[in-house]
Amino acid sequence: MSVAVVMGSDSDLVVMQAAVDTLDRFGVHRIVRCISAHRDPHGMLRFAAEAESQGIEVIIAGAGGAAHLPGMIASATVLPVIGVPVGRPVLSGMDSLLSIVQMPAGIPVATMAVDGAANAGLLAVRILALSDPELREALRLHAADLIDQVEIKNSTITRATEVLR
Amino acid sequence: MSVAVVMGSDSDLVVMQAAVDTLDRFGVHRIVRCISAHRDPHGMLRFAAEAESQGIEVIIAGAGGAAHLPGMIASATVLPVIGVPVGRPVLSGMDSLLSIVQMPAGIPVATMAVDGAANAGLLAVRILALSDPELREALRLHAADLIDQVEIKNSTITRATEVLR
Amino acid sequence: MSVAVVMGSDSDLVVMQAAVDTLDRFGVHRIVRCISAHRDPHGMLRFAAEAESQGIEVIIAGAGGAAHLPGMIASATVLPVIGVPVGRPVLSGMDSLLSIVQMPAGIPVATMAVDGAANAGLLAVRILALSDPELREALRLHAADLIDQVEIKNSTITRATEVLR
Amino acid sequence: MSVAVVMGSDSDLVVMQAAVDTLDRFGVHRIVRCISAHRDPHGMLRFAAEAESQGIEVIIAGAGGAAHLPGMIASATVLPVIGVPVGRPVLSGMDSLLSIVQMPAGIPVATMAVDGAANAGLLAVRILALSDPELREALRLHAADLIDQVEIKNSTITRATEVLR
Amino acid sequence: MSVAVVMGSDSDLVVMQAAVDTLDRFGVHRIVRCISAHRDPHGMLRFAAEAESQGIEVIIAGAGGAAHLPGMIASATVLPVIGVPVGRPVLSGMDSLLSIVQMPAGIPVATMAVDGAANAGLLAVRILALSDPELREALRLHAADLIDQVEIKNSTITRATEVLR
Amino acid sequence: MSVAVVMGSDSDLVVMQAAVDTLDRFGVHRIVRCISAHRDPHGMLRFAAEAESQGIEVIIAGAGGAAHLPGMIASATVLPVIGVPVGRPVLSGMDSLLSIVQMPAGIPVATMAVDGAANAGLLAVRILALSDPELREALRLHAADLIDQVEIKNSTITRATEVLR
Amino acid sequence: MSVAVVMGSDSDLVVMQAAVDTLDRFGVHRIVRCISAHRDPHGMLRFAAEAESQGIEVIIAGAGGAAHLPGMIASATVLPVIGVPVGRPVLSGMDSLLSIVQMPAGIPVATMAVDGAANAGLLAVRILALSDPELREALRLHAADLIDQVEIKNSTITRATEVLR
Amino acid sequence: MSVAVVMGSDSDLVVMQAAVDTLDRFGVHRIVRCISAHRDPHGMLRFAAEAESQGIEVIIAGAGGAAHLPGMIASATVLPVIGVPVGRPVLSGMDSLLSIVQMPAGIPVATMAVDGAANAGLLAVRILALSDPELREALRLHAADLIDQVEIKNSTITRATEVLR
Repeated sequence: MSVAVVMGSDSDLVVMQAAVDTLDRFGVHRIVRCISAHRDPHGMLRFAAEAESQGIEVIIAGAGGAAHLPGMIASATVLPVIGVPVGRPVLSGMDSLLSIVQMPAGIPVATMAVDGAANAGLLAVRILALSDPELREALRLHAADLIDQVEIKNSTITRATEVLR
Repeated sequence: MSVAVVMGSDSDLVVMQAAVDTLDRFGVHRIVRCISAHRDPHGMLRFAAEAESQGIEVIIAGAGGAAHLPGMIASATVLPVIGVPVGRPVLSGMDSLLSIVQMPAGIPVATMAVDGAANAGLLAVRILALSDPELREALRLHAADLIDQVEIKNSTITRATEVLR
Repeated sequence: MSVAVVMGSDSDLVVMQAAVDTLDRFGVHRIVRCISAHRDPHGMLRFAAEAESQGIEVIIAGAGGAAHLPGMIASATVLPVIGVPVGRPVLSGMDSLLSIVQMPAGIPVATMAVDGAANAGLLAVRILALSDPELREALRLHAADLIDQVEIKNSTITRATEVLR
Repeated sequence: MSVAVVMGSDSDLVVMQAAVDTLDRFGVHRIVRCISAHRDPHGMLRFAAEAESQGIEVIIAGAGGAAHLPGMIASATVLPVIGVPVGRPVLSGMDSLLSIVQMPAGIPVATMAVDGAANAGLLAVRILALSDPELREALRLHAADLIDQVEIKNSTITRATEVLR
Repeated sequence: MSVAVVMGSDSDLVVMQAAVDTLDRFGVHRIVRCISAHRDPHGMLRFAAEAESQGIEVIIAGAGGAAHLPGMIASATVLPVIGVPVGRPVLSGMDSLLSIVQMPAGIPVATMAVDGAANAGLLAVRILALSDPELREALRLHAADLIDQVEIKNSTITRATEVLR
Repeated sequence: MSVAVVMGSDSDLVVMQAAVDTLDRFGVHRIVRCISAHRDPHGMLRFAAEAESQGIEVIIAGAGGAAHLPGMIASATVLPVIGVPVGRPVLSGMDSLLSIVQMPAGIPVATMAVDGAANAGLLAVRILALSDPELREALRLHAADLIDQVEIKNSTITRATEVLR
Repeated sequence: MSVAVVMGSDSDLVVMQAAVDTLDRFGVHRIVRCISAHRDPHGMLRFAAEAESQGIEVIIAGAGGAAHLPGMIASATVLPVIGVPVGRPVLSGMDSLLSIVQMPAGIPVATMAVDGAANAGLLAVRILALSDPELREALRLHAADLIDQVEIKNSTITRATEVLR
Repeated sequence: MSVAVVMGSDSDLVVMQAAVDTLDRFGVHRIVRCISAHRDPHGMLRFAAEAESQGIEVIIAGAGGAAHLPGMIASATVLPVIGVPVGRPVLSGMDSLLSIVQMPAGIPVATMAVDGAANAGLLAVRILALSDPELREALRLHAADLIDQVEIKNSTITRATEVLR
């Protein structure tokens, strides 16, 4: 059971690291690779076609601009593919988002928010947890943790706004 | 093993039917329900919280405008949630898309294209196929089918452009 | 008579502080709380459902990205709810704005400008002033104050453009 | 106790009628008027300045394109003003929305969705209900009604998807 | 013969200064004033209504966000009004632009580019030059000057790209 | 004294006719011409360069898509140029608007709303009226007429909403 | 010497036909094919890799939505690739345009306007004309023809506006 | 055999340098010039009309805002013209992109990504390589080089994510 986190360039790692960190926190085995739809299309298709046989169950792909990587990988595998639009200053990340999410019928890509790599990791965990009760339990603890965070943030806010009064 | 297809209004069915049809084609058991984040928020949370115990494994949620349904369901379950932005004439569907896809870290929603319900069904099948070899095989046949369709479309195009010459 | 100012994260306080300050300036009692639609949906609904019985009359809710907080609170109370889209660098705040303003018929959210928390405070004051003549008078003074400000800014501009001539 | 529903042109009535209907359903007294910020700015300011003394408590203003009516009325009264962006085919209603919602600090306009006149009526009712227990009760019934509608829509969906199976 | 350059706030002067500078360069008499559609609507209408009798021939109005100033001034005078959308970081200046340019039939505003105050000055000069042969001649010299600038920039580019070769 | 109304194609006449009609209503002499920046750039520059000597005082130019006509004419004349973005179904007219309004410093184009040809005619009249007291008077009557229209529309609205009550 | 016109689906032919017609008008040999980046990625790469050896000199690729076809073909050939964004009602064609034009450095796609297939044909002709004097001459005649069209359209406009006067 | 790289201002050189560098790397002769559609329209048309006779085969034109340069040059030559939208902070570069890409049928401009000057150089090389086997070979080496880069980036990513584990 493994998740592949792939991206078109090493400069995307600053965004995609959050997906890797999330998988690590849940103890999910992962590989991280540079795969480029545009610079090495044959290598990309080879990766996608062989992923299943190499024990990969979910593929997380991050890309920016005319972001073709998630959709092209999804076209060459039947594994679930999660796409992360990597934002760029120009055009506010809208190009990355639309290039990934607007896939035609037949080839789904599970699209995350612009720069939403942490959620890509979490969605992979939710998918793997369907057949892994331990992971399911970890997700429940994570959900409880989110509630606790609200309480902590609440204290911060209360204190800040009391002080200022 | 079951998939829930939910939507905020019966008027969304014209779009969401494609998700139902896709699941039916792959023989995946599904339930279809009207669940509204805004009209019945407590009912919505109840549905989300109980989904797991009722044998649901994936939830597909369609909504338009300020589309809160997929994200709110995802906040009350640890199952994978797939969001389908339902397009409206006003604002070209951009409101539906951004309301669903731009989720904060912690609560992932697998977002499809505007009106992309067929792909929501297919992504659910890809997820379920991870632990169902028969479904995996059906997906491979579907992929082969897509290739055949290209050949058929190619013939149509060739004929049309020969005739017109 | 009280106004609740709520937000999904303590990081939103830098924007939402302007609402708190405005209410303080008009001497309106207010509480400030971290309420998260996504991290703690049940806590959020509980807050919304109990607000009325706790003497709250208007709720101001700030949120960014796929901003569901104002709309979800509005769905679980009959009090007037004011939404403040909190801007993010990505997508120029358009996601926050559309997620809050494009509510379906049945559940109104009084939407302010992106980062427009000061106006949220002022709208709450305008609403409360309907049954509070003193507050109404304070608003009239505030309106007169805005006119005075124009005169002061006018002097600044006149001086600056005279000097430069 | 009265609500004024105003709009820049009689052609806007097709959208704004939903606000009138909502107020009528709740038995709220209302007046409906053509008020134009651009064609008759002095008449518009006169209306805004006199509204309070004529027993108006909330003003609903609908406008399209460079929609200045809600903001200009809000600048000449201290009553709560609700703005309804009226959509036009060109620019998808984005111009109407931004012209109304992006008000500067000091002059709040409670902005609704594009063409969201029904919610403008409901927000007015929520505001008036703060000092009218009967209206508050009517809102609670309306909320219950929304829940019932979900059940009815659910039956429609269930039946439609059973039949199609 | 005079041009009025007005703006809603002294913070807009950093953008609007270019209009003032352009008028100064052509020796056109100008006044510069803070006029606010939202903070002082009656003062704004008074200014617009009296402009003609005070010898003003063209009004340049700059504003940002829900920018109502140019359109409202145009509604209370028959003088030509030039609008300058002042950009803000949020929404990339799109709100300022659409609020000014999308005026309804009947009330024209000559809209410039976002932050395009220099061109507002130039357009005023082009208008005044219709009845001022000296100004017309100055515009012809300015046009010739633009051509000379191209030659200078060309040298810079040629040198830079030769050096780098 | 004459105004030229030019457009890139005869298909633009359906939009630009409103400019012609407005000029006719005010009795302003006008010529109407097909001038194409892209199909006949030399003819276009010739027209722009000769306009002044042929008694033209204001040029109204309508164009759609990558709308270069108004800006290019403005670059070859010192007369005031008014640009009308002609809307197209694709991209909601945003391309026409931005191509016309975002002119660089040095070459102003007085930009109207998308399809705002009537206002282009009115702006031309406002400009010509600076040296034509009769035209100025006609504009005052037109402004009064706009106020009367509000009263008529008001009657329509009042009657419609009374009937419906 | 041949041009390939490819598209992802036979439904795109209604737009892409204009490219075929343009090539036919100039007597340029062309083949027309259905090539799908998503349904048959290996077939698509095979086509791109073999294009050169089959005598193809320019490839025109049309696609809509998350339009990956032009960019992916460009990544597997060194021939010039021209991309035509095919518009869809949803999102106004913005998704098609950005998915094609925002290519990363290294893999150029010559992008046309949304639905701009005729220009794709013309660009191919301009490219081929670099080594074909006869084609160059045909382009000059075409340019002259465009000028003639302006004269014809001018007559239509003149007549229409004379009649209407 | 030569390529012209032109731009409206020397400030565009910071973006356009990448086109020059790319041509230099492939050993393609190039000239670099400041050509302004707006400041010197006659000079611009002269340049475009004479380009062919001066041995230029491809023209690369960069421009920002209401970017008319590429389209206007394309209207006065039959050579292939490549347009580079130069981004500006305001409006995220959308104005530059749409002004260049949305050309009407008849006058094609091969549009690159916002700030995509490197690809403009590469497209010129791909075009020239059609009749230059050496250049074709260089492009093949460049493509192989891109594949090698992926391997290097892959090592960086692998190392970074191993270290962090």
